[in-house]
Amino acid sequence: MNSFGRNLRISIFGESHGEKIGLILDGIPAGISLSSDDFLKDLARRSGGKSGTTPRIEKDIPEIVSGVYKGFTTGAPIGILFSNDNTRSSDYLNFADIPRPGHADFVSLIKSGGYVDLRGGGHHSGRITLTLVAAGVVAKKILGKILVKADLINVGGVEDTEDWELLLQKTREEGDSLGGIIECTVTNMPVGLGEPFFDSLESLLSHIIFAIPGVRGIEFGDGFAAASMRGSEHNDPIVDSRGKTSKNGAGGINGGISNGNDLLFRVAVKPTSSISKSQQTLNFVTGNIEELKIEGRHDTCFALRVPVVVEAATAIVLADLILSSTL
Amino acid sequence: MNSFGRNLRISIFGESHGEKIGLILDGIPAGISLSSDDFLKDLARRSGGKSGTTPRIEKDIPEIVSGVYKGFTTGAPIGILFSNDNTRSSDYLNFADIPRPGHADFVSLIKSGGYVDLRGGGHHSGRITLTLVAAGVVAKKILGKILVKADLINVGGVEDTEDWELLLQKTREEGDSLGGIIECTVTNMPVGLGEPFFDSLESLLSHIIFAIPGVRGIEFGDGFAAASMRGSEHNDPIVDSRGKTSKNGAGGINGGISNGNDLLFRVAVKPTSSISKSQQTLNFVTGNIEELKIEGRHDTCFALRVPVVVEAATAIVLADLILSSTL
Amino acid sequence: MNSFGRNLRISIFGESHGEKIGLILDGIPAGISLSSDDFLKDLARRSGGKSGTTPRIEKDIPEIVSGVYKGFTTGAPIGILFSNDNTRSSDYLNFADIPRPGHADFVSLIKSGGYVDLRGGGHHSGRITLTLVAAGVVAKKILGKILVKADLINVGGVEDTEDWELLLQKTREEGDSLGGIIECTVTNMPVGLGEPFFDSLESLLSHIIFAIPGVRGIEFGDGFAAASMRGSEHNDPIVDSRGKTSKNGAGGINGGISNGNDLLFRVAVKPTSSISKSQQTLNFVTGNIEELKIEGRHDTCFALRVPVVVEAATAIVLADLILSSTL
Amino acid sequence: MNSFGRNLRISIFGESHGEKIGLILDGIPAGISLSSDDFLKDLARRSGGKSGTTPRIEKDIPEIVSGVYKGFTTGAPIGILFSNDNTRSSDYLNFADIPRPGHADFVSLIKSGGYVDLRGGGHHSGRITLTLVAAGVVAKKILGKILVKADLINVGGVEDTEDWELLLQKTREEGDSLGGIIECTVTNMPVGLGEPFFDSLESLLSHIIFAIPGVRGIEFGDGFAAASMRGSEHNDPIVDSRGKTSKNGAGGINGGISNGNDLLFRVAVKPTSSISKSQQTLNFVTGNIEELKIEGRHDTCFALRVPVVVEAATAIVLADLILSSTL
Repeated sequence: MNSFGRNLRISIFGESHGEKIGLILDGIPAGISLSSDDFLKDLARRSGGKSGTTPRIEKDIPEIVSGVYKGFTTGAPIGILFSNDNTRSSDYLNFADIPRPGHADFVSLIKSGGYVDLRGGGHHSGRITLTLVAAGVVAKKILGKILVKADLINVGGVEDTEDWELLLQKTREEGDSLGGIIECTVTNMPVGLGEPFFDSLESLLSHIIFAIPGVRGIEFGDGFAAASMRGSEHNDPIVDSRGKTSKNGAGGINGGISNGNDLLFRVAVKPTSSISKSQQTLNFVTGNIEELKIEGRHDTCFALRVPVVVEAATAIVLADLILSSTL
Repeated sequence: MNSFGRNLRISIFGESHGEKIGLILDGIPAGISLSSDDFLKDLARRSGGKSGTTPRIEKDIPEIVSGVYKGFTTGAPIGILFSNDNTRSSDYLNFADIPRPGHADFVSLIKSGGYVDLRGGGHHSGRITLTLVAAGVVAKKILGKILVKADLINVGGVEDTEDWELLLQKTREEGDSLGGIIECTVTNMPVGLGEPFFDSLESLLSHIIFAIPGVRGIEFGDGFAAASMRGSEHNDPIVDSRGKTSKNGAGGINGGISNGNDLLFRVAVKPTSSISKSQQTLNFVTGNIEELKIEGRHDTCFALRVPVVVEAATAIVLADLILSSTL
Repeated sequence: MNSFGRNLRISIFGESHGEKIGLILDGIPAGISLSSDDFLKDLARRSGGKSGTTPRIEKDIPEIVSGVYKGFTTGAPIGILFSNDNTRSSDYLNFADIPRPGHADFVSLIKSGGYVDLRGGGHHSGRITLTLVAAGVVAKKILGKILVKADLINVGGVEDTEDWELLLQKTREEGDSLGGIIECTVTNMPVGLGEPFFDSLESLLSHIIFAIPGVRGIEFGDGFAAASMRGSEHNDPIVDSRGKTSKNGAGGINGGISNGNDLLFRVAVKPTSSISKSQQTLNFVTGNIEELKIEGRHDTCFALRVPVVVEAATAIVLADLILSSTL
Repeated sequence: MNSFGRNLRISIFGESHGEKIGLILDGIPAGISLSSDDFLKDLARRSGGKSGTTPRIEKDIPEIVSGVYKGFTTGAPIGILFSNDNTRSSDYLNFADIPRPGHADFVSLIKSGGYVDLRGGGHHSGRITLTLVAAGVVAKKILGKILVKADLINVGGVEDTEDWELLLQKTREEGDSLGGIIECTVTNMPVGLGEPFFDSLESLLSHIIFAIPGVRGIEFGDGFAAASMRGSEHNDPIVDSRGKTSKNGAGGINGGISNGNDLLFRVAVKPTSSISKSQQTLNFVTGNIEELKIEGRHDTCFALRVPVVVEAATAIVLADLILSSTL
C-alpha cells in the first residue's frame, strides 16, 4: 500500500506523466506555521537541471489544498498537490515491447496484467519522491532542535568531491551512468526513540529508505565493516551520564532505540538505469535479443538528487516516533 | 509495537528470563498441517551449544495452544508458547549500574524510567528471535515451491569456512567476539511480489531483518558495490520471455517488485556485545570510568545462529505478500 | 487518522470551504474500467438542491488525477479531487465565539488550540462524505453480483413516504430540522466475509458508518428489538444446504461472518444541527447565555442525502473483505 | 485479524476448549503497578455461576508471563494466559452435521473448508471475551480519573430489575433464553478524544463493541430516538465555558470528538442462541429439517455477563486515545 506511519502517516499517489502527484500528511498537530515557500529549498535540492542530473527541470510548486488555515496547520490532514507540466511522453514509447533493463517495466506489465502507465516510469518514477520531500519539510518542523543532514559522499566509487565533475562529464559522454553513497547524520538526538523488534529505529528507517527507487543497501554505524570487527573494537564505551559514547559504531542506536549519540547511516544508490549506451536485451515482440539505446533526458547520476529525499524520509520517521512517544 | 504484517501478522512477547516467550500468528489459512515436530529442525538451528555459540543450551519445545485442531490449522490465530527454563539470572546483576557497551541496558533504563527487566537482556534478548523462527516454520508452509535459504558466508572478515573453527577458538580464548555476514537466496520466486514505495519488497524485508538484534546492514543484489558501478555494468539484461536476466545485480527486485529471478540479499551482523575481555565504561553509581568484564555464558559469534532467523523473517514477508496477492 | 481499510484503503482530506477535497483509494486491482462519468449518478444522489436539502447545489465533478490510464485502473493508488466552488464563508462567521449546539465548533477549537478552520464546518463538514461516495463508486465495481441498496425508511418519526413532503415543508417553515432512519440491504452475499472479533463484519461496517457525521446508532437484523426477544424467536433456522434461513434476525451475519443471507442493518441519523429557530447557548466572549439563530443554507433533513453514503461505506468494507479473502 | 488499536494494541488467541486463551497487550507504558489480583474482580463479574448464567463456573486466574517485573509494567508487551480446565467437549458433538441456529457453526465450517474446532464454539466462543476483560483491567489504569461504568438496564424487554429473577427462572424452565440492553456511562471525560471520520470516538467504540459476540446494536446519546426528534429538541445547548451542556442527546460526542460531558451509549445483546427448547433446522447429513434440542450448560441470558466486557472494551479505546493524544 502507498501509505506509511503510525501517528504521522503519509499517503501518496501519482505518476510521472499523470495529471497530478500528491500526498496526504495526516497526524500533524495543529498550530504549525506552513506555507508553500517552506518547501522551495528542499524541492530545489531534489529537482534536476544541475550537472549530472536530468535537463528536465521541474519547477515544482506545492499546492497546499487542505489542513492549513491562515498560515497554520489545523490538525486536519494536509493535502499537497504537484502538477506535471514538463513531460515528453514520446520519449517513453515501446517500453512495453522492450522492457528496459534495471527498470520496473517488465514487473509492472506482469503485475498489472498489462494495464500499466509506463510513461516516464509511471507510478514507479523517481519523480514521486517529491511527495517524500514535501512530507519531510513538514516533518522537520516537528523535530525541534534535532537536525537531519544527508550528503553524497561517494560518486561512482570516487570519494573526492573535486573529481566528480570530470567523472560525471566523461560518463555522460559515454552514454553511461553512475551510482553513489549517501551518508545521513542526525544530531541532537534524544534518548529513547524506537523500540526493540518491529519498530526498531533501523526497521522504520530502512523501510522508508528502501521506498526510494534505486536504493540497494543501508548500513548503520560501522555497518558491514562491523562483521569483520571484534566486539572489543565495535562496542561503544559510555563516557558520561547522558550516555555519550567514545565512538559511534552502533550509529546511535542500541536495541532499536536511539541512545542520544548522533544517528548515523549510509545508503547505497545504484547507477541510473536509463542509459543511452547500447544494451542487449529481449524484444518481447520479436522474441530476439536486440540492442537498446534509451534516448531522452536522464540523470547521469540520480544519486545527486537523493540526499534531500533521505533527509525527508528520516525526518518522517523521527517525527512519527516523537508524536508516538509517551516520554 | 511488537507486531508486524498486513495479512499475515506476527505479534510477540517475552523476556529472556521471564516466565514464557510467545507469539500469535494471525492470518494463516485453515487446513495446513502443523505439529510441534515441524518446529524442531529450525529451532535446533537457532539454539546454542555448538562451537562459537553460548553453552546455554535451549531445548525449546513449542507449545501450540490455539489455532490448530486435529493436526491442522483452523484459520484462527495460532498461539505458540516457549518456557524459559535454563536461566541463571545472577549472571546479569548490576547492569543497571554499569550499562554494558553495545547493549540496550542504558536506553532501556531511560526509556522505561527504570522499570525494566534487564535479566538476560530482558525483552531485548536475542532469545526472543525464537518467536520469529517459529513463525517462519509456519510461513514456509505457505510458500509452495518457493525456497528460502540463508547461510553464513563470512565470520570476522574470513570467508573460508575451514578457517572459522580456529578463529572462533582463538577469539574465545581472548575473551573477545566476532561478527559475520549472512547471505539469503530465495529460489523459484514468482514475478509480482511487492509494490513500489512503502511496500517494496526491500522495505518489508529490511524492516523485519532489522528487527533481529545485532543487524548492522542489509544490501540487495550488487548492494553497496552498485554505487561504484556504471549503469551498463549494473543493469540486468532480460534474456527470456519469463523475465530471466543474464545476471542479478538487482537481487531479483525491480521497482520494489520481485522479477522472477532469485531474490538475493546479504545481512551484516555485529560481533557479540557481551565479552569477558575488559572494557572501560561508565559506572553510573560511582560516576567513574571503570573496567568491565562480562562473565557468564555467551556466544563468541552469535551470527552463527542467525541464518535460520533470516530465513524465517524472509518467509514471513513472502507469505504475507502471497496472502495479499490478488494475482 | 483519516484512513481506513486493510487491503482496500481510503485516505481523505479537505475542508468544506478549503481549496480542494480529495481522496486516495489504494489497493484497487488493475484492469477495472473507470471514468468521471461513473461517479455522476451517486454524486448526484448525495448533492443538495432537492426538497428538504440545502439550496447549496454542489456540482461535484471528480477529477481523477492518478491510477487510471486509458480508461482502466492500473493498480497504482487512485487520486480523486473535488473543487469547492459554491462557498459563502460569510455565512459561518463568529462560530468560534458562539459554538453552535450539536456542531463540532467547541471541540475543534479546544482540540486544535484555536488553529481551526470553522468555515462550513471545516474538516468536520458533511461535505467531506463525497470522498466516501466517490470511493464507493469504485468499490462497487469490485463487488461482482453483490448488490448494496440503502433507503431512507423514516423521516422525523414518520414511515409513510407520502407524508414526508408536508412534514419537511412545515419543519422548514418553523426553522427546525428532522432526522431519519436508513435501512441498508445487501443481496447476493457470499458466505464467509468477516471474521470473529475485531474484524467482524459488524465491527468494520459500524466503524465506517459512524465515520459519517450525524449518525447516532446502528443495528443489525432484529437490532435493539432482539434484546426483548426469546432465543426461540430470534434464532434463524437454516432451511437449505447453502445456509438459507427462514427469517433474518441476525441480519445475515453469524459470529462476525456473512452467512449468505441478505446483509441487513439500519442507521439512525440525527436532525440537522444548524437550525434558524432560536436556540439558547453560551456566548464564549460575553460569557452570557444568548439566543442563536443560524442563518445560511442548510438541509432541513440531511438524512435525505445519506443513503448513498451508507451504500458507499458498505461497499468499501465489502470490497476490502473480498480483496482480503483467501477463499 | 485478531488485533485492535493504534498505540495500545490488543492481540488475542484461543478457543473455548483449546489449551489456553491469551492476549498480548502492547503499548502499555512502563511503571504501572500490575498483579494477578488486579484482575479478579472484573473477571468474576464476567464468569458464570450466577442466576441466569451458565453453571460452568470458570475460575479464571490470569497468568502474566511477560511485560511485568517486580510488580510493575516495563513497557514491553504484556502476555497474559488463561487455562481452559472446566470443559465438557462431549456436549458439543455433531454441530458440524446440524449447525445450530444463531451460532457460527455453519459459517465457520464453510470459511475454514471444514478445518474448524467447533467445541464450545471454538474461537467464536463468548469465553474469548475474557481477553477483553483482562485488557480492560490494564487499560483502566491508564484512564486516571475517567470512570467507565456499564450496567444491564433491560432483560428480555423488562426494565424493572426486581422482575428479572422471576423472568429468568420462567424462561429457563421453558428451555428458552433472553436478551438485554447494556448502558455505558463514562464520567470525568476530557474534551478532545477522538477525531472526525475514521477515528471518531463512535467508530472506535462501535468497532470493538461489535467484536463482542452477540451484540446486535449500539446507539449514542439519544440514539435511534434522535431520528424522530427535531433539531431544536436534539441539540445540546452549551451552558458553561468548559463545554458543559444542559442535556446530553449527543452522548458526549460532537464530530467524533469527546466534548467533556459524560460519554453515554447503549448496547443491544441478543438472547442466548443455545436453547434446550426444540428448534426446527436443517440436518446437513440427512438433508432433512429436524428438531434440535441443545443440551449442556448454557446462559439463560448471557447479557448478564456482558457489562464488564463493555466496560473493558470502552476502557481499551479510551486508553489508546489518551496514549495517542498530543494534547
